[in-house]
Amino acid sequence: MSRQTNIRPDISRLWSTLMRSAEIGTTPKGGLKRLALSDEDAIMRQQFIDWCEQAGCTIRIDPIGNIFAERAGTDSDAKPILVGSHLDTQARGGRFDGILGVLAGLEIVRTLNDHNLATRHPITVVNWTNEEGARFEPPMIGSAVFTKQKSPDFAYSRLDKDGISLGEALRKTGFKGEEIVSADQFDSLFELHIEQGPRLDDAKLQVGVVTGAFGVRGFVIEIFGETGHVGPTPMPARRNALVGAAHVTLAIDAIGWAHHETGGKSTTMRIRAEPNLLGALPDYVEMTCDMRHPEEAVVIDMLGAFKTQIPELEARSRCRIVVKEGWSYGGMRFDAECVDLVRTSAKDFGYSTLELLTEAGHDAMHVADYLPTAMIFTPCEGGLSHNEAENVTLADIEPGVNVLLQAVLRRANRV
Amino acid sequence: MSRQTNIRPDISRLWSTLMRSAEIGTTPKGGLKRLALSDEDAIMRQQFIDWCEQAGCTIRIDPIGNIFAERAGTDSDAKPILVGSHLDTQARGGRFDGILGVLAGLEIVRTLNDHNLATRHPITVVNWTNEEGARFEPPMIGSAVFTKQKSPDFAYSRLDKDGISLGEALRKTGFKGEEIVSADQFDSLFELHIEQGPRLDDAKLQVGVVTGAFGVRGFVIEIFGETGHVGPTPMPARRNALVGAAHVTLAIDAIGWAHHETGGKSTTMRIRAEPNLLGALPDYVEMTCDMRHPEEAVVIDMLGAFKTQIPELEARSRCRIVVKEGWSYGGMRFDAECVDLVRTSAKDFGYSTLELLTEAGHDAMHVADYLPTAMIFTPCEGGLSHNEAENVTLADIEPGVNVLLQAVLRRANRV
Repeated sequence: MSRQTNIRPDISRLWSTLMRSAEIGTTPKGGLKRLALSDEDAIMRQQFIDWCEQAGCTIRIDPIGNIFAERAGTDSDAKPILVGSHLDTQARGGRFDGILGVLAGLEIVRTLNDHNLATRHPITVVNWTNEEGARFEPPMIGSAVFTKQKSPDFAYSRLDKDGISLGEALRKTGFKGEEIVSADQFDSLFELHIEQGPRLDDAKLQVGVVTGAFGVRGFVIEIFGETGHVGPTPMPARRNALVGAAHVTLAIDAIGWAHHETGGKSTTMRIRAEPNLLGALPDYVEMTCDMRHPEEAVVIDMLGAFKTQIPELEARSRCRIVVKEGWSYGGMRFDAECVDLVRTSAKDFGYSTLELLTEAGHDAMHVADYLPTAMIFTPCEGGLSHNEAENVTLADIEPGVNVLLQAVLRRANRV
Repeated sequence: MSRQTNIRPDISRLWSTLMRSAEIGTTPKGGLKRLALSDEDAIMRQQFIDWCEQAGCTIRIDPIGNIFAERAGTDSDAKPILVGSHLDTQARGGRFDGILGVLAGLEIVRTLNDHNLATRHPITVVNWTNEEGARFEPPMIGSAVFTKQKSPDFAYSRLDKDGISLGEALRKTGFKGEEIVSADQFDSLFELHIEQGPRLDDAKLQVGVVTGAFGVRGFVIEIFGETGHVGPTPMPARRNALVGAAHVTLAIDAIGWAHHETGGKSTTMRIRAEPNLLGALPDYVEMTCDMRHPEEAVVIDMLGAFKTQIPELEARSRCRIVVKEGWSYGGMRFDAECVDLVRTSAKDFGYSTLELLTEAGHDAMHVADYLPTAMIFTPCEGGLSHNEAENVTLADIEPGVNVLLQAVLRRANRV
């Protein structure tokens, strides 16, 4: 098939939709707080649906609230190509994380409309529900239900910190759809995303060709100590759960440092102590932790190395340390053919590229187990993300959006 | 004056009042949750007032809710002797901490009534408001207002975790009194308390003669990091505030261990992290910490040693560490004459004693700056306190209660 690099998305129009999105859930520091299925998320979802309908798309919403906006193709036997990401944000998130991928999908549809360009395969812009996991855990739950990795009932039962279930939030916002939408109805998925790391920005490279994903292990650690009075209880009689938590935190941090030259990292990100009161020794701490590495085998080793240390950490802190629950994702490689469409599209534009693995979790990682999938990264300022100061310029995203259009077009018109 | 050791309190009667108290705010594990000025505390306060009135006492309640129940003396020029402690508890507290001291005061009044025994000085049983600090901070706020170390307005403005002010809670429970009660109206204070440490119980000694108090420093530490995505942010680019908190916690713990042979201890007891979410590096941690030592000069050194380490802890964690606010109490010695009354009363009974300093904070420490003051400790099982499993037996408390009555009687009838 012929190259169609003369067709370019309207980057200014895309930017204006990004700036409209940035008005919905704006934080005082200019970031976004648009938690999944919040009032703000509902407003943004409706805005997205309005735009898609204005662009002639047919909207379907599935029972987990994923939104599918389809631009028809010419071949009734050809399955749609999914293009999208997520519109929800962290509690102190940025204006581009996820949002760029959804609105770039919309821009592709608008561009094809502008050129009256039909494609053989339909193109479906998708917004996945609760990608961030900032309100309901686990993250990426919309794509997990779409791929049947999680049941709708499991998802509905997830509670936010106020005890509101995801099912309740879906009903309240009116986004519990009735369409049965599943992976086998689609051809492939392309997800454009800001890198959320500094590699492209540091090296001043234009496009990230994402070949796969880091292996990720998340886990919750419980630390059991003993309460008592902070005054009279002698040091040797103490079992302070916060001291246990400190030993665990530094052990996990050290494992990340031990592997950082090969791209490893480890994090203690969340903590809750009990009774957490003035005057009382803490008898319980719950912490949420994370380890990542480019190689699945190494992240398994990292977690193993931590678990091996537990008896020593218990002895040092006189607390009992239990790894309570865990989750894993990533560690896979994206579809060679789809990745090559990204690579060759970037090359045809003459863009500078970097082949890399995604270190963050993305819905594309769930979908990749069921459909040919690829991701494209754009640079982001200083690699900063999950932060209100997250930033990109129009020039930063233009190459990635051009590549997205080309890769999708080539996939949509392949014979 | 003559010894009156033939007069003994009715320990079974005292025990029955303690068991009645243990029914008000009982936790599933058999401890007490009777936070200051909660509904449960209000019920207990009314029960205490009823008992005191039945014993012929005159009740006064001051504007901070301290309750004073006076048994008249024979000499209208002699000032009352205060005997008491507190009826509020920790969120997961025990059945005796504080409560024993108040109800032993009531038992003394009842015993004197039984024997138709008048005293020259009046005896006033006192219940101090919000000793624990488990609902409103700082702790020991009732005695601090009584001694004018804190203003009533400062106390009223204290907020609990639900944003309810102490002033509001006083009004809601009806315990905002109108009586002007101040230290200069009284002769002295005797406070009986469980030890809340293991020394008496370990050595099987019957009475603790409390000669003074540990020096105490409390402080709040803020740790400033930077948020970002837990995935792509490389280890060297991180400033994880929980890693800073872990370094701080272990540094503080080590200072306690370095001084534990001379009785020092240090604690990190409370923590709050932000944004405290899955997927985001923590950019802020607030921790509440505590250091104690028998010698005021040493506790000053301990805190100094921690502050000296801050630049190194900052370098290790790449976070900014700030000691935000602090408080201090203790470090004083009780009144030699009052302490000697306790010592000789115990000796006259033939009780085994231990001279020791209080390691916990007590209202007596505030009052000691204004009135001759002494404290008596009873053993408590395993030294466990601020814990639902806190326990004493009737036999554990009997010697201390006998000594309290004798010491108070001798003080009340001195010429």
